[in-house]
Amino acid sequence: MEATEQSKRLSALRAELAKRNLAAYVVPRSDEYMLEYVPPSGERLAWLTGFTGSAGLALVGRARAALFVDGRYTEQAAKQTPAPLWEHHHLIDTPPAAWLEQAVQSGERVGYDPRVHTPGNLEALRHAVERAGATLAPVEGNLVDVLWSDRPAEPAAPVEVYPEQLAGESAVAKRRRMADQLASEKLDALIVSAADSLAWLLNIRGRDLENTPFALGRAVLRADGSLTLYMEPSKLGAEVLAHLALAPASGPNVGVVTVRAPADFIAGLSELSGLRVRVDRASGSEWLIEQLGAAGAKASLGPDPCTLAKACKTAAELAAIRAAHVRDGAAVLRFLAWFRRVAPGGEDEWSVAGKLAELRAVGQHYRGPSFSTISAFGPSSALPHYRATRASAVPLALGNLYLVDSGGQYLDGTTDITRVTVVGTPTSEMVRRYTQVLKGHIALSRAQFPFGTTGSQLDPFARQFLWQTGVDFDHGTGHGVGCYLSVHEGPQSISKRPSDVALRPGMIVSNEPGYYKPGHFGIRIENLIAVVQLDPQPEGAEKTTLGFETLTLAPYERQLIDVGMLDHGERAFVDAYHERVRLVLGPLVQDDPDVVEYLATSTASLDRADAALPGV
Amino acid sequence: MEATEQSKRLSALRAELAKRNLAAYVVPRSDEYMLEYVPPSGERLAWLTGFTGSAGLALVGRARAALFVDGRYTEQAAKQTPAPLWEHHHLIDTPPAAWLEQAVQSGERVGYDPRVHTPGNLEALRHAVERAGATLAPVEGNLVDVLWSDRPAEPAAPVEVYPEQLAGESAVAKRRRMADQLASEKLDALIVSAADSLAWLLNIRGRDLENTPFALGRAVLRADGSLTLYMEPSKLGAEVLAHLALAPASGPNVGVVTVRAPADFIAGLSELSGLRVRVDRASGSEWLIEQLGAAGAKASLGPDPCTLAKACKTAAELAAIRAAHVRDGAAVLRFLAWFRRVAPGGEDEWSVAGKLAELRAVGQHYRGPSFSTISAFGPSSALPHYRATRASAVPLALGNLYLVDSGGQYLDGTTDITRVTVVGTPTSEMVRRYTQVLKGHIALSRAQFPFGTTGSQLDPFARQFLWQTGVDFDHGTGHGVGCYLSVHEGPQSISKRPSDVALRPGMIVSNEPGYYKPGHFGIRIENLIAVVQLDPQPEGAEKTTLGFETLTLAPYERQLIDVGMLDHGERAFVDAYHERVRLVLGPLVQDDPDVVEYLATSTASLDRADAALPGV
Repeated sequence: MEATEQSKRLSALRAELAKRNLAAYVVPRSDEYMLEYVPPSGERLAWLTGFTGSAGLALVGRARAALFVDGRYTEQAAKQTPAPLWEHHHLIDTPPAAWLEQAVQSGERVGYDPRVHTPGNLEALRHAVERAGATLAPVEGNLVDVLWSDRPAEPAAPVEVYPEQLAGESAVAKRRRMADQLASEKLDALIVSAADSLAWLLNIRGRDLENTPFALGRAVLRADGSLTLYMEPSKLGAEVLAHLALAPASGPNVGVVTVRAPADFIAGLSELSGLRVRVDRASGSEWLIEQLGAAGAKASLGPDPCTLAKACKTAAELAAIRAAHVRDGAAVLRFLAWFRRVAPGGEDEWSVAGKLAELRAVGQHYRGPSFSTISAFGPSSALPHYRATRASAVPLALGNLYLVDSGGQYLDGTTDITRVTVVGTPTSEMVRRYTQVLKGHIALSRAQFPFGTTGSQLDPFARQFLWQTGVDFDHGTGHGVGCYLSVHEGPQSISKRPSDVALRPGMIVSNEPGYYKPGHFGIRIENLIAVVQLDPQPEGAEKTTLGFETLTLAPYERQLIDVGMLDHGERAFVDAYHERVRLVLGPLVQDDPDVVEYLATSTASLDRADAALPGV
Repeated sequence: MEATEQSKRLSALRAELAKRNLAAYVVPRSDEYMLEYVPPSGERLAWLTGFTGSAGLALVGRARAALFVDGRYTEQAAKQTPAPLWEHHHLIDTPPAAWLEQAVQSGERVGYDPRVHTPGNLEALRHAVERAGATLAPVEGNLVDVLWSDRPAEPAAPVEVYPEQLAGESAVAKRRRMADQLASEKLDALIVSAADSLAWLLNIRGRDLENTPFALGRAVLRADGSLTLYMEPSKLGAEVLAHLALAPASGPNVGVVTVRAPADFIAGLSELSGLRVRVDRASGSEWLIEQLGAAGAKASLGPDPCTLAKACKTAAELAAIRAAHVRDGAAVLRFLAWFRRVAPGGEDEWSVAGKLAELRAVGQHYRGPSFSTISAFGPSSALPHYRATRASAVPLALGNLYLVDSGGQYLDGTTDITRVTVVGTPTSEMVRRYTQVLKGHIALSRAQFPFGTTGSQLDPFARQFLWQTGVDFDHGTGHGVGCYLSVHEGPQSISKRPSDVALRPGMIVSNEPGYYKPGHFGIRIENLIAVVQLDPQPEGAEKTTLGFETLTLAPYERQLIDVGMLDHGERAFVDAYHERVRLVLGPLVQDDPDVVEYLATSTASLDRADAALPGV
């Protein structure tokens, strides 16, 4: 966007502020669906500011305007939204609330759109505004939408049925299970506002967003199992309608699904008058809670029960996900074999990522990437959230690391894998750091722990070897992953942030410790792992003991492993994993002798003296 | 207490309820000082119920009365407070709030004494009572005190000056430092309600409680550094008064201490009218907050800044604490040497604990135990909080473990140590479990971690080897320890409970993982460890890296160590620790050849083939 256009839009918004007697207006990155990704129609922050990152918030006052982004977007924000039009601040270190407290005067009003905020994410702003003696005022109709004349329509991609044999549980059974849970909590209904809950609950998928197969919409589930789906009828073909209209399996209402247009949502809420209605704390907007109140319903803010149920994959889902990982692993294996031959001969970060995309695309059930690939060479790899563009891509050269963090959406599962390899000869520092990261990755993979343990309790296992040498990595160790759903899902995670969510069998998390040396190189090793109840349990076990099954299949980089730094158990883990990779992927790559050869050498036992490979 | 007496007291309390139109009354274990231990005058729960445990809460309704205790007191509570007079419930699993919600009717009032509750610990009860449509009503004057005609007077033991060369910081400097911190938080004053803060801030100690050298009282610290101490003047001798009256070191008011009688406290609060006053969230009663409000002050609930400052020991305190641990270690060493000769010849849990107390008592600066010794043989040792009495003590016999958890108060430090030894020959299960516990204890001792890391992040290191085999222990791994103060202090801890308190250099914590096989045996290995900034830092460190210094000095039990289960680093840790124990304690026990011999064999290198000792 050009600076004059940016200036024009800001002025137009300020004119709206003046018209409505507002001292400032809040423009978050989130839209009505509170998702990590927003469709083009929800890109209000980008339209107003020019900033296209995936997290941020703008505050527009009468004289000053500020954009708040986190560390990964500091540079990008400064480039895309030039000062002095926009001030730039760190979302965490110098938060919006403090800025707002200074910027407003007693008696003034700060406007916001209650449709794009949860009560939780407004709390700090509200307190700040109130400390200044001002008020936070909900404004009907988003002020950006008022100005954005060519705002795209909401996406309306066709919805598809998610096969029951992959889901492992019928939509009717899910509704019954969730309805029973509502009843047990003395709730009469649930507003299904989270897009992944909606997809999971109804066994449907959509194409409304890039990378994530959500069908945007909302639903109301009653404690009798009946459900009203608010979604554009044009998105629902005959097959989906037939699927939704499944005859009741038990009870008079279970299985009854009514479809209504999104425009009827408010009218539909009036039917909840007098009822206790659960609103999901993470995705329910303030607007939603207000509307429920206006309808005479009693909103109960808390967890959407679908969130936990969805996270605990069924046996069928796990079988499907394992199959998807075999195909994904074969693509990554072919990529790594190819990579060692081509680098550094003229390829760059962008071109090699293209090759990986090609190799994934031929896989059965492949639907696209699960997120934008991070393809990073050398200093780029030290930026955990780096995104190369065709124009900015760095060419490969001898003597540094290449990091690729990528994933696929397959009908039968979502993948996310990071591997690091080397172009030329690594330094001893690179090898030492890679091995330390690997040791943490192994420690987490091998962890066994009692039922009730949270991801935050396991997080230090992945960091301990880095900590011993005075270094760390500044991101979480693991995020939840869906089954042909979002590559980031809750409620589970493995992170320093304290969590009260216990890990449960069937949950999938990433295991991705790293190490980043700014300006030099970065390392991250990532597998997806599923929580399993150990079978058999340890001899003499007194607590139900859980552990992890590794889903991801691709060799680690033996050129970067200092075998002498691994203890016996760690070497045995790597050897056993590599043997499994060889046995499972081998049959899929027999067409390419070069890949066969790469698979053999890259997965040979670490104890074999002849296993060391020369540099590329 | 006899049942008829119990019944009489309960009836008398119910008569008071009726008189005041109350449906129920809350009797917590805590008194006005919110401490773990209460003086005889604060033993209201014991007076009313007969229950003498250190944690619990009673709810007395018109027809039903219930006592809530945690798992360690279930048996004791049932014995001391017989049904049907008292119902018995678990404090955590079936909490008081749920009972109260059922027990009261809409419109009724539940009474409580706001002097013996913090707002935080009333919250759950208040919500429960409100859900029932009733109200929680503060009652002037404790209803137990009304009935308790021979209630002892508040303790008034003489206060002593804590030497500045041990404290490492003058009381004037501490007041200045805390006053500056108040000013930086825009606070005008702090109510010093926590007894350990009071002792620390003023460099004084008292004898108002068993085991813990507190002088009960309160103080108001102003942001100009002046302080008003509310304490019985009879407790303050000439030396203490001279100490408190130290001339200002800088600034006109810093160093000015005014002493007033506790009865003047309310009147004194009126001087805070219009000021912002910090009330310690952990020890400030609801009554205190109300009184501040009545005085026209604005109460700011938050952390007492003394709590963190006190936890970070000065270099002088650490030097003193090390010295105390040498004396304490020598006593424990003599005890262990003695123990192997006498057991099982007629000794029991009580008698051997007496021997340990005798050995400690001759140590320089010894002031008494820091808590009631846990002296537990065989099945008793499986109860983490076991207390033998002279009458109930179990005699030692062949073939089981003896666990002793004890500590001393020395003028120069507070100790807390647990050792386990064996009478006769241990089973292989005992050896395996001891070694697993030891491995966790070592992993925590050797942990290195970046500044900012909390105790809850380190906790899993102590549990990992138990978890791997499907077992765990149901208590925290470590608690903070004071310097000639309480053996339990905050804000730091090492536990599963999420914490936002980062470990800082100078903090002392216990390192005490365990394993308990109910009805059979128990194991706990405990050293005190101090957080240190590593010097030198690890080569190439990018984060300020912390670790631990072990303070406690006494051999582990080599008869219970399966050396084959230890890796090289773990063996080296034990050998280095034992060598230090030998070098430091050796000179102190030269008078007793048997102890010298025991020290040599018990601390010999694990790698020495001849190091194994025969069973006792």
